[in-house]
Amino acid sequence: MPEKFDAVDVIRTKRDNGRLCEAQIDWVVDAYTRGVVADEQMAALAMAIFLNGMDRAEIARWTAAMIASGERMSFEKLSRPTCDKHSTGGVGDKITLPLAPLVACFDVAVPQLSGRGLGHTGGTLDKLEAIPGWQAALDNDRMMQILDEIGAVICAAGSGLAPADKKLYALRDITSTVEAIPLIASSIMSKKIAEGTGALVLDVKVGSGAFMKDIDQARELARTMVDLGVDAGVNTVALLTDMSRPLGRLIGNALEVQESVEVLAGGGPKDVVDLTCALAREMLTLAGKPDCDVEQALQDGRAMDVWKRMIAAQGGDPEAELPRAKETQDVFAEQDGVLTELDALSIGVASWRLGAGRARKEEQVQAGAGIEIHVEPGERVKAGQKLLTLHTDTPERFERAQESLVGGLVIDPDAAPGTGARGDVVLDRIG
Amino acid sequence: MPEKFDAVDVIRTKRDNGRLCEAQIDWVVDAYTRGVVADEQMAALAMAIFLNGMDRAEIARWTAAMIASGERMSFEKLSRPTCDKHSTGGVGDKITLPLAPLVACFDVAVPQLSGRGLGHTGGTLDKLEAIPGWQAALDNDRMMQILDEIGAVICAAGSGLAPADKKLYALRDITSTVEAIPLIASSIMSKKIAEGTGALVLDVKVGSGAFMKDIDQARELARTMVDLGVDAGVNTVALLTDMSRPLGRLIGNALEVQESVEVLAGGGPKDVVDLTCALAREMLTLAGKPDCDVEQALQDGRAMDVWKRMIAAQGGDPEAELPRAKETQDVFAEQDGVLTELDALSIGVASWRLGAGRARKEEQVQAGAGIEIHVEPGERVKAGQKLLTLHTDTPERFERAQESLVGGLVIDPDAAPGTGARGDVVLDRIG
Repeated sequence: MPEKFDAVDVIRTKRDNGRLCEAQIDWVVDAYTRGVVADEQMAALAMAIFLNGMDRAEIARWTAAMIASGERMSFEKLSRPTCDKHSTGGVGDKITLPLAPLVACFDVAVPQLSGRGLGHTGGTLDKLEAIPGWQAALDNDRMMQILDEIGAVICAAGSGLAPADKKLYALRDITSTVEAIPLIASSIMSKKIAEGTGALVLDVKVGSGAFMKDIDQARELARTMVDLGVDAGVNTVALLTDMSRPLGRLIGNALEVQESVEVLAGGGPKDVVDLTCALAREMLTLAGKPDCDVEQALQDGRAMDVWKRMIAAQGGDPEAELPRAKETQDVFAEQDGVLTELDALSIGVASWRLGAGRARKEEQVQAGAGIEIHVEPGERVKAGQKLLTLHTDTPERFERAQESLVGGLVIDPDAAPGTGARGDVVLDRIG
Repeated sequence: MPEKFDAVDVIRTKRDNGRLCEAQIDWVVDAYTRGVVADEQMAALAMAIFLNGMDRAEIARWTAAMIASGERMSFEKLSRPTCDKHSTGGVGDKITLPLAPLVACFDVAVPQLSGRGLGHTGGTLDKLEAIPGWQAALDNDRMMQILDEIGAVICAAGSGLAPADKKLYALRDITSTVEAIPLIASSIMSKKIAEGTGALVLDVKVGSGAFMKDIDQARELARTMVDLGVDAGVNTVALLTDMSRPLGRLIGNALEVQESVEVLAGGGPKDVVDLTCALAREMLTLAGKPDCDVEQALQDGRAMDVWKRMIAAQGGDPEAELPRAKETQDVFAEQDGVLTELDALSIGVASWRLGAGRARKEEQVQAGAGIEIHVEPGERVKAGQKLLTLHTDTPERFERAQESLVGGLVIDPDAAPGTGARGDVVLDRIG
């Protein structure tokens, strides 16, 4: 059968700043998945979309076409409503770990189909794999069973969801076409809609350590994704949250599990607790359960209980000691003053270079690598005081990690205490 | 050895509307030729260049990098100065055929390394191959020998010239990145500079049948190419010439050879003669020989003499009868009036559909296919008068050829004679 369109014409339409019609979008996404549209043609189209944009209807159709490229799941058989959360990625963002069991305490099912990290922002599966015995891969039946019995599951997204997105994402990664709002939004939302969640809360990060460096861009991305969700029948809201500072005091894989467990035990750093609770309230409200006392569920051990069962259900030992890196190196204050800058990107890149993240898909991450932060921005410090501890199994990495910290930590001898301190984590709400 | 750059960074620079530095350009063109930069990466970069442009220095460096990807020829051993001509392509553009022997009459050597046609504009080699026995391929030594003995040669460009351009052109063709001025200009000029001509006259076509539809774009392309030539030490001028009407009255392969021979015999249509003479004067002036009487050389048979020797030197029989198509079909005027429109693009597409051109590189062209035009735009015609004769070996093509003529020929019963007549062929000169 002849093809309905010619890729050259579709590319030209967007190149000349025209609107792609529904039939063109359906065809080009499908034909790319089938291999009829070549990688170089999709690369040219992605760059044209990057530079000329897509309107709301085009993005919605593009997303629908990516969903149609694969299977769709459904949680309708579950007795409980479902709500998922997606973060655009940040440094120290371990929120999924305490959040999923916390929300599950209130009879809302949380299916967290997650990914691995690439670059400096880390991945949820990499973090959980630091727990001895824990396995990311589940078949659909087992996932449903865990959701039904425990109420929360964090596992690898199956390859059957939106295969067009998978192929396109790999292409965008090598062609500098990642950071386009229409392409980011459709990539995230195609997977979330195909997954079949009843509701969705988006955590859109803003700041140096995030994909989106400024709040206007982040707001546009959030608005685009919320519209896509709502148009597809998924009740969706977005929080814009601060990523100019790392989240919490522990950055890495095992280190972030450790901090998550602190939060589930009723402790943990204020920013991590605040964001976990804010997202939990949004998820519960979307699922028809406003006014749940989420703080109480962290304090009284209910969330910890769900966590332990959830980890054990995937072969993990929630009581096992977490792996530690073989080597550590401390970073000290060079002068007296106030820590006015603790830059999320610098910390993220340093942690990545220590081995917590990967530069290429094939690479392994180190479970124990990462960074402990001993002071908060805005605190007064003394010369020689310990600011950070770097962790790695491969000490030859310390030097490059230290390089990435240059300029990322600033001590100002003349600044007033509180200068540079973290403000509210939640900056805005779209929905 | 590690690569100097990462393609992702180079693409991002141009995507974000930055300037590519010389080292980036050298690397990306070379790495693409080596296969280290993938087709999809070059496609994304080409689209970013298409939409964000390159400045004069970037284009010059890009051209130099494409030249450096292959061999450079030199005509310095010749006793005569050299001058080449390049046309951006038009309908009925057979000018190279009478022009090369005409210029050679005045002891200027004309090395015409030519290509085949793709799309509706035809190719010089396809036309000459209609002559029984004529061969396009020559090795360098034989080409030099013919240039030395006869003064003019038209042959296939060797694959050793600017291989990066060859690879990039094939990629641009399938990714809708052909019509960008920096990429067109560097593609044309890299081959012409690598070829080693001492001087170059560019025939930049403007109008419906040309690549450049409006004169401002054409002027920008001409200016860009002239700058590239001059910067590389090749004395270059450009004429902007009208391509809203087909050139001459015969369009096709053998048909255009026939019309070229008419010109060389001192006859032929005025527009073809005018443009041939205008280009010849420019070439001779650049080669240090102004004030040559080129019209006289057409009248007294000197140009015809060089033509016959040139054709015979490549195995062709200049006296042989030219192939004729097996079938013809006439197109008649439907009413009385003035022929106010005879659109170059419509005629070009119709001729292409009759078999004079090819849609894909692998296709063969028909030597006899094409169109005879019996009236000139601006002439008064009677209902039933013959306007065109279509020629093809495959009469099933008549219908689609006729379709492409719809709207391309307009007879206005109320217009004054002369309405829509061709004006001067040469519109402007850049140099």
